[in-house]
Amino acid sequence: MTVNVDVAIVGAGPVGLFAVFACGQLGMRTAVIDGLADPGGQLTALYPEKPIYDIPGRSKIRADALVDDLLAQAEPYEPNYILGHHAQACSETSDGTFVVTTSGSRKVFARAVLLAAGAGAFGPNRPPLEGIRAFENKSVFYHVGRRDRFAGKRLLIAGGGDSAVDWALSLAEVAQSVTVVHRRDTFRALPAAVAAMQADPRIQVETPYQLVGLDGVDGHLRAVNIGRIGGNAKRIGADALLALFGLSGDLGPLADWGVHIDGKTIPVDAKTCETSRSGIYAIGDVARYPGKLNLILTGFAEAATAANAAFARVFPGKTLHSEYSTTRGVPVSTQNQHFQTA
Amino acid sequence: MTVNVDVAIVGAGPVGLFAVFACGQLGMRTAVIDGLADPGGQLTALYPEKPIYDIPGRSKIRADALVDDLLAQAEPYEPNYILGHHAQACSETSDGTFVVTTSGSRKVFARAVLLAAGAGAFGPNRPPLEGIRAFENKSVFYHVGRRDRFAGKRLLIAGGGDSAVDWALSLAEVAQSVTVVHRRDTFRALPAAVAAMQADPRIQVETPYQLVGLDGVDGHLRAVNIGRIGGNAKRIGADALLALFGLSGDLGPLADWGVHIDGKTIPVDAKTCETSRSGIYAIGDVARYPGKLNLILTGFAEAATAANAAFARVFPGKTLHSEYSTTRGVPVSTQNQHFQTA
Repeated sequence: MTVNVDVAIVGAGPVGLFAVFACGQLGMRTAVIDGLADPGGQLTALYPEKPIYDIPGRSKIRADALVDDLLAQAEPYEPNYILGHHAQACSETSDGTFVVTTSGSRKVFARAVLLAAGAGAFGPNRPPLEGIRAFENKSVFYHVGRRDRFAGKRLLIAGGGDSAVDWALSLAEVAQSVTVVHRRDTFRALPAAVAAMQADPRIQVETPYQLVGLDGVDGHLRAVNIGRIGGNAKRIGADALLALFGLSGDLGPLADWGVHIDGKTIPVDAKTCETSRSGIYAIGDVARYPGKLNLILTGFAEAATAANAAFARVFPGKTLHSEYSTTRGVPVSTQNQHFQTA
Repeated sequence: MTVNVDVAIVGAGPVGLFAVFACGQLGMRTAVIDGLADPGGQLTALYPEKPIYDIPGRSKIRADALVDDLLAQAEPYEPNYILGHHAQACSETSDGTFVVTTSGSRKVFARAVLLAAGAGAFGPNRPPLEGIRAFENKSVFYHVGRRDRFAGKRLLIAGGGDSAVDWALSLAEVAQSVTVVHRRDTFRALPAAVAAMQADPRIQVETPYQLVGLDGVDGHLRAVNIGRIGGNAKRIGADALLALFGLSGDLGPLADWGVHIDGKTIPVDAKTCETSRSGIYAIGDVARYPGKLNLILTGFAEAATAANAAFARVFPGKTLHSEYSTTRGVPVSTQNQHFQTA
């Protein structure tokens, strides 16, 4: 399935969403690709309920409410949301059209690409255990998914945050047994929840321990070996491991795009936000230039800068008339936004 | 009267107001100086009721509502508002403290200055008539002020916009006579209001005419001479002239500040927003660098950039810890904001 637009935006975080509007105001149609199933990037995935204080004109706004507002602002321009797809490759046709291919085999044709990739594609932090990939999605999991897949199992939960504690309490109701392994003695979770976990006879808490190895056959776990740092080891019989070490970003998929990447950021020309590859722009946290501040509001301004720069490529020879939004207005949308997911 | 702060902000438009917040988040106290009596700059003075569409996360917001929101966001940092004062001069003490003197003889001591001057200090457009200054505020006015100062007078109103038409209708109720002079045959006003003016027996409309000279003694007007372009002239007996040609900006007062000015803008280093004078920064519409966009949201990002750059000057040797606003929060204010006016 192919999508034809003027600008392909990689990343549906706040800056990617505002880029839809910034491009739309200049008459450019957009597609937005994001590996996560929901728009909003880190705001949705990591801290939807946290208040943000530094959005201009918003004394205090919850992260999820800001995402809703940005979606509403983008909506008149009817973007194509391609969510649950990672942007994987970017080729270029002989006439200079970019072709962005997604993990779900969509092809997005566009005259310009905006990388609003934040800290990169988000994935779970995987513990560094030998052979762990063979167990993944069979007996090793990084998120709960369906609760009943742990029914009757000897479950080991690794991690020390809210989700480890909360899921231990919840899954103790269906699992045969639950063991919580954390490398510190203290948990970063609500004290009441930690106390409930420690008082629960169905839950065994092992601290300060960390995972050292997996034991099993054909992806089916039998036991997990845990150890104290520089100290003794233990073997815990287990049918399933739920490793809850949070998410982190990875720019890996962009390595082959012909865009110069410096560590976790992409250097751009501050005047245009253009990367080392002509026609590909980077905005928001992923973009780097002298004096760069990692603020959402800075990313918003970069979205406007990149949209203006992309305009010349999308509409060669057309003059961009600088107009205030009070004069230009926005189109009245005739349809609701639609999300495509994998 | 003197005010001691960390940062003096010149201009209380949207970008100046957000600069209060941006400085406040970094622990810097601010004073905001503006020649207008109300905060909000052009948003308040020129188009308070117009909708703005390109504030990130706000699909549509009236200009005056945005100003209210920016004031609320700035309020926890308890800025000193010095309104109705023009920032006139900027000297520097031997220890590098700036002293900004206002038209109302206030002195603001600050370690850094942010020029958020927009299109400059706003003043009425003065018609180019010989000796007009001698009549100003006696018989020549640029705004209505008290309606009864035109009671019983032969009034000439010059201009072709909403305010000329609306005030002609209103002041015809109190004046002895009203003559409206406009250089075109068509008025830029509500058609219904224009029709009412043309039908009103108390109002004489003279088009296409422009002002060519004033006749009077000691600031007291006797008549105004008007003329067609390249054509005949007329003399209109008048006790008062109300010239409604709108407002325009003027950077003039900044000419002696030792800051390089290029036409109507101030060149800055985009990395820091610093002007040619160390410690003085320019942000918003007045600031210019390669790739600059004249958008409010761009000015917001510049306010954050300048605040970060000023921090090193305000707190030498102190390290700026980059923190998200979700972590840092805002102070709880114990008092309401207060405005100082001339």
